[in-house]
Amino acid sequence: MAEPLPAPADEPSTRAADEEKGRAHEALSAVARELEERGEHAGGTAQEVLEAQAMMAEDPSLADDIDDRIAGGKTAERAVHDAFGSFQQTLAEMGGYLGERAADLGDVAQRVLARLAGIAAPGVPDPGHPFVLVARDLSPADTALLDLDQVLAVVTTEGGPTSHTAILAREKSIVAVVGVAEAASLSEGETVIVDAAAGAVVTDPSPEQIAEATTRAEARRAATCAPPTAGALADGTAVPLLANLGKPEDATAARELGAEGVGLFRTEFLFLNSAEAPTVADQQAAYETLLSGFAGCKVVVRVLDAGADKPLAFLNDDTEENPALGLRGIRVLRAREQILRDQLTALAQADAATTERGEGAELWVMAPMVATVEETEYFTSLARELGIKTPGVMVEVPSCALLADRVLQVADFASIGTNDLTQYTLAADRLLGSVASFQDPWHPAVLRLVKEVGAAGRDAGKPVGICGEAAADPLLAVVLVGLGATSLSMSPSALADVRMSLSGHSLDDARAIAEAALAANDAASARAAAQAAASRTTAA
Amino acid sequence: MAEPLPAPADEPSTRAADEEKGRAHEALSAVARELEERGEHAGGTAQEVLEAQAMMAEDPSLADDIDDRIAGGKTAERAVHDAFGSFQQTLAEMGGYLGERAADLGDVAQRVLARLAGIAAPGVPDPGHPFVLVARDLSPADTALLDLDQVLAVVTTEGGPTSHTAILAREKSIVAVVGVAEAASLSEGETVIVDAAAGAVVTDPSPEQIAEATTRAEARRAATCAPPTAGALADGTAVPLLANLGKPEDATAARELGAEGVGLFRTEFLFLNSAEAPTVADQQAAYETLLSGFAGCKVVVRVLDAGADKPLAFLNDDTEENPALGLRGIRVLRAREQILRDQLTALAQADAATTERGEGAELWVMAPMVATVEETEYFTSLARELGIKTPGVMVEVPSCALLADRVLQVADFASIGTNDLTQYTLAADRLLGSVASFQDPWHPAVLRLVKEVGAAGRDAGKPVGICGEAAADPLLAVVLVGLGATSLSMSPSALADVRMSLSGHSLDDARAIAEAALAANDAASARAAAQAAASRTTAA
Repeated sequence: MAEPLPAPADEPSTRAADEEKGRAHEALSAVARELEERGEHAGGTAQEVLEAQAMMAEDPSLADDIDDRIAGGKTAERAVHDAFGSFQQTLAEMGGYLGERAADLGDVAQRVLARLAGIAAPGVPDPGHPFVLVARDLSPADTALLDLDQVLAVVTTEGGPTSHTAILAREKSIVAVVGVAEAASLSEGETVIVDAAAGAVVTDPSPEQIAEATTRAEARRAATCAPPTAGALADGTAVPLLANLGKPEDATAARELGAEGVGLFRTEFLFLNSAEAPTVADQQAAYETLLSGFAGCKVVVRVLDAGADKPLAFLNDDTEENPALGLRGIRVLRAREQILRDQLTALAQADAATTERGEGAELWVMAPMVATVEETEYFTSLARELGIKTPGVMVEVPSCALLADRVLQVADFASIGTNDLTQYTLAADRLLGSVASFQDPWHPAVLRLVKEVGAAGRDAGKPVGICGEAAADPLLAVVLVGLGATSLSMSPSALADVRMSLSGHSLDDARAIAEAALAANDAASARAAAQAAASRTTAA
Repeated sequence: MAEPLPAPADEPSTRAADEEKGRAHEALSAVARELEERGEHAGGTAQEVLEAQAMMAEDPSLADDIDDRIAGGKTAERAVHDAFGSFQQTLAEMGGYLGERAADLGDVAQRVLARLAGIAAPGVPDPGHPFVLVARDLSPADTALLDLDQVLAVVTTEGGPTSHTAILAREKSIVAVVGVAEAASLSEGETVIVDAAAGAVVTDPSPEQIAEATTRAEARRAATCAPPTAGALADGTAVPLLANLGKPEDATAARELGAEGVGLFRTEFLFLNSAEAPTVADQQAAYETLLSGFAGCKVVVRVLDAGADKPLAFLNDDTEENPALGLRGIRVLRAREQILRDQLTALAQADAATTERGEGAELWVMAPMVATVEETEYFTSLARELGIKTPGVMVEVPSCALLADRVLQVADFASIGTNDLTQYTLAADRLLGSVASFQDPWHPAVLRLVKEVGAAGRDAGKPVGICGEAAADPLLAVVLVGLGATSLSMSPSALADVRMSLSGHSLDDARAIAEAALAANDAASARAAAQAAASRTTAA
């Protein structure tokens, strides 16, 4: 594992201050340019992360701080080290999401220091043959540009499921297991099996284990390369596989990966970076692009989900003690109803316009953060009034899952957001490192709630989708279908693995696997029990 | 309703600055003294609230701000008005619990301004005969010293269930309904029925309604004055009625009100106002006082519940984005295990010492904020190792309720904290005004979870108590017993009303009433359905 560069010596500069400043600025711009280039090359989420890092390198207050330190007699190296360190500490003290970004800032500092030293930035080694990469954590820049022909799998000793490494690896379909502390003791040249499905690293594998893993890896490659088919269980039960998307332009790539429609279209991109809500006309244009990109398919749009980790200046009150339990989702839209009315109007008009042009999709619209039957009545009746044909709710709050039978008497469909549902069910902030171990959708309490919603959907004859990260886990996907989910929505890159996993089990199998997971006491045992049940049913 | 004093005119002072400063300081000290005196007279929670207000009046930075404004040419009146207003705004912008304290600061300002004007502080009117007090909101000072012979009931148009008015009224057994906006239109001399059980004000009542209300009020008075008996349903089913206590000294008063033991002893008082955890010896002494005060009775002690709304400097990280979903309760004790070990050791030693003296109580010890079976195993095994005979868990997190069957295979008992359970189940901060409407333990989703825990307790043959505010609501108390609660713990002043309510229903009645509430779609309908079912079963 690459060690971070040593801290530059804290000795007076022998250069003129202007020369040191010039060196520092040159290194900062060069790193910013390099990160931007890597981002353009990578695209998608990686590009967003790398552009954010490039902006850190060009932050004017950081540059001022560095200049001040140089003016005080420091070398460029030491000034960069100290200024970044101080910013990093401030971020870390903020905790939560911002605290996690401190690591990204640290990575930028390493790159600038490497540039100043005239050496290559700490990065991915190149042993000249395919290998398993074991690292403390990977920088977004490295993860984004991993050579998929050389890197067989990634194992990190730090980081959790919401770290950038984990998210980017998932997006690139890299076999990755994060947060395996024991991997630090692995040595160069050892043979290991990285089992991403089980979240485990098998050391010193037997010849049988190697043969079995090789067979699985080949089957996976074959399935990934085969032209995508519709999602279905082994007995033919259809399980539509849909995409989670954040921008209309991502439609083409998602369809190429076999998305049968969109299970979660996030609309925040229209509202971010603007001081006010966008106009109905602007919104309608974006929704038309989305719908025509999925003509003939189902497209589930979530209305604006503002608050908590994605506050909007014109909507959210930034003084809440616990924003995750505050005025967010449908609560804040209700308090500012005109924003909701405009969005629903734009969606209904886009639906009508695309249908008239023969490019229409099957538009469903859902509200985030619905907690009560009364909120369900509010949203569905307003949506219908404004021309939405199929209004539904996201199930992210425990009360909504517990009353799903009554909620589904009112809503046309439910879609379970497993990330927030897990956060609230376990009462553990999903972005807070110190309670990260609670954030596992395999927890039997979360599975119990999914089962409640699934049963309510079956009784009411209404669809129940899953649109949280959980659906992208191939084994958990089988469990969710066993619990009553009728469709699964995920990052498009996860579709192939989930499609293959579903095709290996019948509905009866899936139910048996789900019951095995439900009977466990904790998340790890639930996963192990499902794994055991799955190998039994696959063998039978 | 008394109107606030008009803002003092913003015109230059005609007095010397020193004279104005002297006037302001005299008024501030006089108000602080008066609040302290009222507090000593009232005792209990009221005293704490009034002492906090007295400290506001004597806050040095407020005094400095007032002096600065006077030095700038303002009158004492205007300087007080502006300085308090600016502090109040800062508090209000902080939101949450601190935001709610802005009202307390406003009340202090009103008293200081009245003192400067040489008039009586706005307060409770005295019409010379018993009356129903209708007010926008009551100041803590007024609520604490209400004349119970003259004030038949209190109705406020503002404030929620966590307002000081509501809490103090409950503590003094005053019939009170808070947050009834329509009450603003009542006029002097109108006859109304204040039905605290239904949370309603009946205007223009019929003679029959008046007769029925009079009968109920007399029955209540008779029951309150009768010597307290053990809690039981009409069919004789015992439902021990216990006290929620925060200090060992409160034992005598609680026993006089008929507490059969302690259902929730909060230990935070030992840890607050100190830079470090108290020693084992100091803790042991406090616990011995508690146990000998309840010799022969059950005493359930909760280990330190730090975090969220009651952070401790030496334990909690103040940078969490969402402290209610952070490292709190058992999570933080586990991270700092020595504190937990010391507390359990002190409890076990106090238990042994009091038992040896023949003054022992039946000590049960529970952990707050338990979310998983694994945490249950951790706490109960550590507690047993250190000599605690009966370790249990608080059920406040939805996952703990959903897995109660497995939790109760490990723990000796469960105690449901309805306040936090409601907060997490509805994902709404219980101290945040904008989402206060979600904070209602009558919500059927919360009742569903209580039922899960009750059923798990029955199956495992283990006790399930309730120690949240919900147990103090006489009708909800019946519902909770119907859902499987085996004991109820509350503020001692609520014991008489709950005792009377339980004695009016059999266990079968209670179950039927609970089912009626569970079948409702929202909290208000659940309460109404329970009310209707209760009058049916009482009549039968």
